[in-house]
Amino acid sequence: MNDVTDLTLEQKASLLSGHNMWSTKRLDEAGLPSIVLTDGPHGVRRQTGAADHLGISVSEPATCFPPAVAVGSSWDPEVAARLGQAVGREARALGVSVLLGPGVNIKRSPLCGRNFEYYSEDPYLSGVLGSAYTRAMQAEGVGASVKHFAANNQETDRMRVSADVDERTLREIYLPAFERVVTEAVPATVMCSYNRINGVSAAQNRWLLTDLLRDEWGFTGAVVSDWGAVGDRVAALSAGLDLEMPGNGGVTDREIVDAVRSGALDESVVDEAVRRVLALAEAWPAAGWTFDADAHHALARDLAAQCAVLLKNDSRTLPLDTAGSVAVIGALAAEPRYQGSGSSRVNPTRLDTALDSIRVHAEAYGQTVAWAPGFTADGSGDAEALRAEAVRVAAAADVAVVFAGLGDKEESEGFDRTHLDLPAAQVEVIRAVAAAARRTVVVLANGGVVSLEGWHDDVEAILEGFLLGQAGGGALADLLYGIANPSGHLAETLPLRLQDTPSYLTFPGEQQHVRYGEGVMVGYRYYTSVEAPVRYPFGHGLTYTTFHTRHLAVTVTGDDTAEVTVTVANTGARAGSHVIQVYVATDAGPVRHPARELRAFAKVALEPGEERTVTLTLDRRAFAYWDIMHERWVVASGQYRIQVGTDAATVVAEEPVKLGGDPLVTPLSMDSTVGEWFAHPVAGPALMRGMTAAMTPEQRAQAEQQQDQLRMVESMPMRVFIGFLGQAVPQAALDQLIEASREAR
Amino acid sequence: MNDVTDLTLEQKASLLSGHNMWSTKRLDEAGLPSIVLTDGPHGVRRQTGAADHLGISVSEPATCFPPAVAVGSSWDPEVAARLGQAVGREARALGVSVLLGPGVNIKRSPLCGRNFEYYSEDPYLSGVLGSAYTRAMQAEGVGASVKHFAANNQETDRMRVSADVDERTLREIYLPAFERVVTEAVPATVMCSYNRINGVSAAQNRWLLTDLLRDEWGFTGAVVSDWGAVGDRVAALSAGLDLEMPGNGGVTDREIVDAVRSGALDESVVDEAVRRVLALAEAWPAAGWTFDADAHHALARDLAAQCAVLLKNDSRTLPLDTAGSVAVIGALAAEPRYQGSGSSRVNPTRLDTALDSIRVHAEAYGQTVAWAPGFTADGSGDAEALRAEAVRVAAAADVAVVFAGLGDKEESEGFDRTHLDLPAAQVEVIRAVAAAARRTVVVLANGGVVSLEGWHDDVEAILEGFLLGQAGGGALADLLYGIANPSGHLAETLPLRLQDTPSYLTFPGEQQHVRYGEGVMVGYRYYTSVEAPVRYPFGHGLTYTTFHTRHLAVTVTGDDTAEVTVTVANTGARAGSHVIQVYVATDAGPVRHPARELRAFAKVALEPGEERTVTLTLDRRAFAYWDIMHERWVVASGQYRIQVGTDAATVVAEEPVKLGGDPLVTPLSMDSTVGEWFAHPVAGPALMRGMTAAMTPEQRAQAEQQQDQLRMVESMPMRVFIGFLGQAVPQAALDQLIEASREAR
Repeated sequence: MNDVTDLTLEQKASLLSGHNMWSTKRLDEAGLPSIVLTDGPHGVRRQTGAADHLGISVSEPATCFPPAVAVGSSWDPEVAARLGQAVGREARALGVSVLLGPGVNIKRSPLCGRNFEYYSEDPYLSGVLGSAYTRAMQAEGVGASVKHFAANNQETDRMRVSADVDERTLREIYLPAFERVVTEAVPATVMCSYNRINGVSAAQNRWLLTDLLRDEWGFTGAVVSDWGAVGDRVAALSAGLDLEMPGNGGVTDREIVDAVRSGALDESVVDEAVRRVLALAEAWPAAGWTFDADAHHALARDLAAQCAVLLKNDSRTLPLDTAGSVAVIGALAAEPRYQGSGSSRVNPTRLDTALDSIRVHAEAYGQTVAWAPGFTADGSGDAEALRAEAVRVAAAADVAVVFAGLGDKEESEGFDRTHLDLPAAQVEVIRAVAAAARRTVVVLANGGVVSLEGWHDDVEAILEGFLLGQAGGGALADLLYGIANPSGHLAETLPLRLQDTPSYLTFPGEQQHVRYGEGVMVGYRYYTSVEAPVRYPFGHGLTYTTFHTRHLAVTVTGDDTAEVTVTVANTGARAGSHVIQVYVATDAGPVRHPARELRAFAKVALEPGEERTVTLTLDRRAFAYWDIMHERWVVASGQYRIQVGTDAATVVAEEPVKLGGDPLVTPLSMDSTVGEWFAHPVAGPALMRGMTAAMTPEQRAQAEQQQDQLRMVESMPMRVFIGFLGQAVPQAALDQLIEASREAR
Repeated sequence: MNDVTDLTLEQKASLLSGHNMWSTKRLDEAGLPSIVLTDGPHGVRRQTGAADHLGISVSEPATCFPPAVAVGSSWDPEVAARLGQAVGREARALGVSVLLGPGVNIKRSPLCGRNFEYYSEDPYLSGVLGSAYTRAMQAEGVGASVKHFAANNQETDRMRVSADVDERTLREIYLPAFERVVTEAVPATVMCSYNRINGVSAAQNRWLLTDLLRDEWGFTGAVVSDWGAVGDRVAALSAGLDLEMPGNGGVTDREIVDAVRSGALDESVVDEAVRRVLALAEAWPAAGWTFDADAHHALARDLAAQCAVLLKNDSRTLPLDTAGSVAVIGALAAEPRYQGSGSSRVNPTRLDTALDSIRVHAEAYGQTVAWAPGFTADGSGDAEALRAEAVRVAAAADVAVVFAGLGDKEESEGFDRTHLDLPAAQVEVIRAVAAAARRTVVVLANGGVVSLEGWHDDVEAILEGFLLGQAGGGALADLLYGIANPSGHLAETLPLRLQDTPSYLTFPGEQQHVRYGEGVMVGYRYYTSVEAPVRYPFGHGLTYTTFHTRHLAVTVTGDDTAEVTVTVANTGARAGSHVIQVYVATDAGPVRHPARELRAFAKVALEPGEERTVTLTLDRRAFAYWDIMHERWVVASGQYRIQVGTDAATVVAEEPVKLGGDPLVTPLSMDSTVGEWFAHPVAGPALMRGMTAAMTPEQRAQAEQQQDQLRMVESMPMRVFIGFLGQAVPQAALDQLIEASREAR
């Protein structure tokens, strides 16, 4: 390839937008091939006919792996990695250079229509999983595109809405997953989101795309627009957006040329972006490959089994007794919902149903399986008759397993939900079956969490599958029969009521603005901090065995790091996997902290009776908050509690540690408050001596007597306080103390 | 007085700051006398000796009327007016031209240390009371200073903290009380607050002090600084701050002179401010007057009796049976807490205690009164012995009345509380007395609300006095014995837990910023909108009689106004006053509304058996929201429910009305979403015709089949949507529709 300086301005500008919906322009003069970027990320959506970014027209068959909502619940970077590797292979086989994923946006509200494409309400969990996925996929020669950068946490008005969010919240909640993927996994591209952030669109946001992404995080790849996200091409280019997608027939290429010609845009900005696009095409050639569809289907089944979350299991209802009879209820057992709707929709290579898979297992055990649809997936038909049949079938069996969930009508990319309810007809079936059946198990399929209220207490067991991909039916059958042992944990809180969610009153905003009023108090950070009850907390997940946690030990390894050692034993009779969840809690520093924050985790597979001691590292960021006054990460000096929880609400072991933190003494000024002056290690005592010396004995007596009243001046800046006192301490003396406070820093 | 143009620049500048702590400079050349501005507002705090703005040094005796927290609970503009009139007379008698009140800040959190100086969590109630007070005081020839302008809702870091708050919230919650006082009552001055608003200090906030206050609201009086609030004098003057207080020896006068000389400040700005200061001194000369201390004490007792709130009264425990014996418990019965701490502290002309007043009544009834302190006001002494004595005394009587509350240590100007608890020793006494006594009444004295949890269910009756001024002891005795009938209602919600309050996670902010994350959802607006339980809702208050509400009728009197008629009857055996609370509820328009908002109220005195039909007006603002896109008040077209409540959570009558609202159709653009295009009355149908016409029959069939999936494009701007479709509708056709939409406006 020649250097960009050999190309004309027109040629260069032409490279900064797509050739069509999915490919970049080829430029023979530069030896540059066209490359394909295509939707994902839980499978490849390669369109070779009619192209759209809406999930409408058909795409080439590819394995539909579990979407991110399920992978999040695995709490296992291995699951994310094996999935990323397989998707990478299929992408290469289908001629794709860049696959548009992972999605690591935070689930700010359970209502977000695209939550099924995201991992978690927690930035650490999201970042670890997204990073593992990206590394594994890129190791197969396919570039990733971490998206949607940034603060794209809703679908409502997603192309205009401004996420109005303070910097501490951005830094601590909405950006860390991107930061981890960018710095750990070095993705080929970053995809900017549609929305605005504090009034500036992500596509034209120089702070976001250049100051933060490149200068702070060191990103050297290409920034690509979300499809149609560019409003002002020249402004976007200046902000750091390299490749606009899809193509638009050269309209915006000409705008770039005109801007350079008119002097509004420096040509070096164009050159820089072109270099990045050239480097992208060069680095990810998508040379041939093949994949084994059978093996990938089996992999999809294995991964799915590690994602489902056993929420409830009274009276050991699960795994199913192989002796008795089983009634399978619910249209979703035969017509599974296994992925979300919209641009990520994959055309699966095949499709398991839970009903068929259960029948296969039952046959092996010599067990009878009865089935009744109970309701139709689209809500059509005679609801009463369907329900009556389901009740009859359920009453005749030893256990009823009801497959319920949401359809594409209820949740999708492009719009947000307005409530958390299952369709009413399904709730009625669950309640009727639970009343008639000896035991009832509910298996759920949904991209965003659904309310369990109104029937939770009526059923014995609940297995939350979320969306499990094309082999989810097989995986669910494996879990129901105990062929696989549930090991998923909630990656998002399951609330009691929509009204309890922290963003309830501000989501999805109004008049093109959404205020992130809850700040860092997102998900479990909120519920634990206000001590509000939830149905199931973040991190909750049951299993068919039992685990025991002990010997928590924490070693401080520096002023701002520590190492956690903990021993976990499988004390039950089945092999299983346990997630060690390490939270940090503190009141140190000048900011309000959530009650606890997830700072490390590890999923450990244990045979019955097996015990393992695991070491987890808490790095500096595990203790840091974003300080808006110093504009940097700060570890405050003070006490920290290291907590191991079985979920965010249940701490089973805790160790306190004291950290030195950052040497950060703020120097005093006349704008420092009286309280800050007196609290200063050097200036405080000196000031006290000075002030009492200046007082008459009468004043001193009065001051002592009125000490309580003086608490009201603590928040007074020294400037104002001294003004009121008629400069009781000479300015020269104060200036001297200010100088001393600078030295004490 | 000469015109300002006859004065030198130095003379003019000198008039823009105080002479000393409390008075302005005299300027004989201008025939200008010095005038006195002094603290209030529930009494006159006129210091003639040592001066301070901290409530430390003594002031001249003046009647201490009930502070604003009590007046707010009266729900009666007559109470506010009679208090304002009396304070005005005393101010004039004491040579005061401007009394620094009323305080109409909103109680954003119950923790705010200065809540006792404010009326309510509701802006309408605050504005009506503040307006009545101001008009009545100014009618006596004393100028008011409505304060603290604006968004000063906490004491923590009050001189630096930035209230970060969106404009709709400012306009709908934090500014309307000021707006009402300014536009209805025309106060002599407005006092700017200490804090910053969205980063700009109130003293230097041109949007606040000029654009809003003068240009929008038409204020022509002087803006005075809170004492010590000015950081940059020249910036403050430019922003619209006329008079800096207190004096500072001419330092900032010279800064003004220098700025004019250097050309940094236009002299006309100085002239304008000087004219306002001259006009102030001219208009409020504080010519002699006298006041009758006995009459004012009696007035203070009468007013106080109309403020206390009867929260609970099981088994008709109150009024006290005059036959049995009474045990009075609690140090606060003998050493009352009757006003708050800080700059508003009044040196009372005399002081009633509840104990003495109860004894007077009891003697008249021939009843015995026993007394035990139970605890000490300052927490000293042998708590156990005191409690034991109290239990003994209480057990021997027919009823025990416990006087509990907060002290100046627990709440004050200058700092915020961190919890809502009564002192633990007092709670123990209440619980012990309740366990021993036949019946227990608790009488509370507190400036901010206190938690009743842990003992609420143990006692029969609770009378919340808040702070009732120097005659509060007499008023409480009158209420306990039924000589007065309780008619106060909560002007703020009494929560179950601090964690339930809407600002819990953001109050009082951090690092010099406080995010008003809950937006307009302050106080009862929050609790009713999230359907969260509270101990007692806003508006709650019991009485010794019974009232019945009926015949609610609502007449729409225009596109944006209505008249409410309702009949109230006293169906009990005692004379009493009932508060008609009118709330408006709606889902109309593009913004999220609180479940209901107080839009009108009236306090009606009724003899037993008396019935009265009352008409209340709902003006345009009763239906309006602040529209940030149009930057104006908008009444949305749609359904409104007019609700009469006995409190904010209890609607006893409701009528729906339909309002035409404002003719406000937003014209379309290429940035309007597909949803907005299709919803447009003119463009929508035309577009639908155009799009289906452009489709092949095959596309049309596919589109119909995938109609549900198309919901995901609703939030897509037309620009992006059309780009994806390859301009399925020609741009010229869209431009024509845009033109048509403009005309349809």
